[in-house]
Amino acid sequence: MSTPRGKMVNAFDPASLSGLSAETAEAIRRRQRLLGPAYRLFYKDPVQVSRGQGTKLYDRAGHEYLDAYNNVVPLGHCHPRVVEAVTRQMQTLCTHTRYIQDGILYYAESLLPGFGGQIGASGHMMFTCTGSEANDLAMRIARHVTGRRGIICTAEAYHGNSDLTASFSPSLGDQSPLGAWVRRVPAPDSYRGDPATLGQRMAEAVAEHAWELKRHGDGLAAFIADSLFSSDGIFGTPEVLGPVAEAVRAAGGLFVADEVQSGFARTGARFWGFQRHGVDPDIVSMGKPMGNGYPVAGIAIRPEVIAEFGRDTRYFNTFGGNGVAMAAAQATLDTIRDEGLQENVVRIGALMTEGLRALAARFPAIGDVRGAGLYLGVEMILPDGSPDAAAAARIVNDLRARRVLISATGPAANVLKIRPPLVFSAADTDRLLTETEAVLAAIYR
Amino acid sequence: MSTPRGKMVNAFDPASLSGLSAETAEAIRRRQRLLGPAYRLFYKDPVQVSRGQGTKLYDRAGHEYLDAYNNVVPLGHCHPRVVEAVTRQMQTLCTHTRYIQDGILYYAESLLPGFGGQIGASGHMMFTCTGSEANDLAMRIARHVTGRRGIICTAEAYHGNSDLTASFSPSLGDQSPLGAWVRRVPAPDSYRGDPATLGQRMAEAVAEHAWELKRHGDGLAAFIADSLFSSDGIFGTPEVLGPVAEAVRAAGGLFVADEVQSGFARTGARFWGFQRHGVDPDIVSMGKPMGNGYPVAGIAIRPEVIAEFGRDTRYFNTFGGNGVAMAAAQATLDTIRDEGLQENVVRIGALMTEGLRALAARFPAIGDVRGAGLYLGVEMILPDGSPDAAAAARIVNDLRARRVLISATGPAANVLKIRPPLVFSAADTDRLLTETEAVLAAIYR
Repeated sequence: MSTPRGKMVNAFDPASLSGLSAETAEAIRRRQRLLGPAYRLFYKDPVQVSRGQGTKLYDRAGHEYLDAYNNVVPLGHCHPRVVEAVTRQMQTLCTHTRYIQDGILYYAESLLPGFGGQIGASGHMMFTCTGSEANDLAMRIARHVTGRRGIICTAEAYHGNSDLTASFSPSLGDQSPLGAWVRRVPAPDSYRGDPATLGQRMAEAVAEHAWELKRHGDGLAAFIADSLFSSDGIFGTPEVLGPVAEAVRAAGGLFVADEVQSGFARTGARFWGFQRHGVDPDIVSMGKPMGNGYPVAGIAIRPEVIAEFGRDTRYFNTFGGNGVAMAAAQATLDTIRDEGLQENVVRIGALMTEGLRALAARFPAIGDVRGAGLYLGVEMILPDGSPDAAAAARIVNDLRARRVLISATGPAANVLKIRPPLVFSAADTDRLLTETEAVLAAIYR
Repeated sequence: MSTPRGKMVNAFDPASLSGLSAETAEAIRRRQRLLGPAYRLFYKDPVQVSRGQGTKLYDRAGHEYLDAYNNVVPLGHCHPRVVEAVTRQMQTLCTHTRYIQDGILYYAESLLPGFGGQIGASGHMMFTCTGSEANDLAMRIARHVTGRRGIICTAEAYHGNSDLTASFSPSLGDQSPLGAWVRRVPAPDSYRGDPATLGQRMAEAVAEHAWELKRHGDGLAAFIADSLFSSDGIFGTPEVLGPVAEAVRAAGGLFVADEVQSGFARTGARFWGFQRHGVDPDIVSMGKPMGNGYPVAGIAIRPEVIAEFGRDTRYFNTFGGNGVAMAAAQATLDTIRDEGLQENVVRIGALMTEGLRALAARFPAIGDVRGAGLYLGVEMILPDGSPDAAAAARIVNDLRARRVLISATGPAANVLKIRPPLVFSAADTDRLLTETEAVLAAIYR
């Protein structure tokens, strides 16, 4: 059950500088000297990027890469509306939440109703800079209101890089310690498990661990999940989390929906990932895509959950909710709506899924194609059905050599991870599928 | 020893809407509804800001406020060089550290040598979005390398809003729990203590608590301090932390210099606050002023301290060290140097200190004027020498009524906190002193 120290899926191995261009090798040496050993690069041959536009990245020599990976820019790289909104606001004012400002209130008003349920009716927004900060704050609040410390997450979850969020981010690897009050349940694996009973089995596991946490003298503060289970291997089956939310509440815990990956129309079907599961969360956390690259993140929360915390202490984040962050977030939200990107996700997501399934029919090494909207996983297997990490790594690196950027994920590192900007077009999809087909044909001829 | 729940120095009391303009009262009600109870506003009559330029803020009616408080914009509000650098980079590329990019390496090269000591010679930079994230990461690393959990901070320290950093931020108030492995030492109070023995006494307290932490079965991972002791009441005596660093190392702990407040030329005398104390830190954390308002922060670290962490796990922060963050940080650093702002701090800081001392000579209610560079504290006292929080609150609010923005700090909330942008001019200083004199004359006539 042990993984090599510091292992990361699709990471460059710094011991393998040979075979790289002199320029790349030199840049990597400079990085090691200046940034140290905790940083990781993608790919066997790391990409040097110098420019981006829409769904394309460009290296210094001007080579174009198709970006089928970066969800931080849902509107595509360098979207002019966000650049303009940020520039205008930076020229006007950039300060914090201890003065009254309009932008933050307008943005909260724009976003809150869309959550539906209790948060949509009377919820509050709080702003941070990163998804890690959002999940960290969510758990601080959950522990304060419940008076308990227990947290349940999925087996290979990732929820952040702070001390607390890393303690319930098992995907950081065996050498990154989990918290004493953290328990893990298996993700709802629709490929290797029975899709019909995923929710029920997950709910039973949650109930069992909640009891166990109580037995250890504390109890369950919160359950947290990314509803696409990205680092668990990407599982998009809807309506799984309903029974889980019931089990969490029966144990007196809060249900935290981590929407850093699945939020802001990523799944196409609904604007928020949790809505595909019909649950009504106590706290929703959000991050990455929120400002199309500008550091902005936050939580939405039921008033009852924050009342005690707000009375007993306070929350201040110097940059969180500053005027420029709000301008970036507003422009991003407005553009997702004005450009009909949620509809684009439905259309292009279906096209991409169909194309990948056609490849799966030809190449038996593809065991499964799954996910939702523009967040797809392609599970690579050996003839006996077991995970094939080597194939996934080779496909990712061969695609990179053909200047198409994707990555891999999952506990066995065998699931291709395709997660392009939401503006991905039919032509982009055709290019992705054509290049993937060529790579598969070369490997499995 | 208990403070009211959720108390904050210079916070608006939401129960006191009467007396405010209809517009302000309505904006506050909207804030409460949309942002909830954990947010705080400054002043009895909160300021609605809509525009900023240099050392001035403007409300919607166009009234000008002199900003003698906001250190997040060392170059002044909306400095064109940072706006231009951010705009240009946003139009070009904004992506993360898992691709090779030049800007982050160039910035690390610009910043590292200036730390001097071991970090200056061979240190690494790691980037986060906020000072909280920087301190959180510093402690994760310190605990990983030492294998211990104990943290020593000062009695009223503030180091961040994450779960871990809040656990060693006693200034968040009695209802925000300190960590089980957190111990506090008194700040070096040069007003109420003997200035000659400040360092020695602090070192003794550190040694005692380190022994106590060991006695509880763990030990000292790190000592952390802001060398201006901002939330402890602002103490600027230099050369205090040398004996402390020795005591920390004797106990096997790391010395973490929190430069979020004192870094980037704020103290005038030196570029970094710890350099006024002649110490060579293991980790330096930085934040607020680094990008003149853009969310960027980070740590600088000795290679030996990060080696194991880098081998065993990894650090990735989606927005941390992105191209735009680096462009903002580079423009800010270059401007501090090109505009000679460190020299301006020396000159204007001396002028301001002299002016405040002249007021202290006329008004016995000013017990002490202290600090360093453009970070000054003015301690308000009653005739018997005890702290006068009411006077500090009245002065802060009376100055706000005259459109001069400062705040207050310290465990007894009786220390005026003056911390303007580094571009503060002689004319700005004259206006600050003239208005302060008028306020004092009205109170103490």
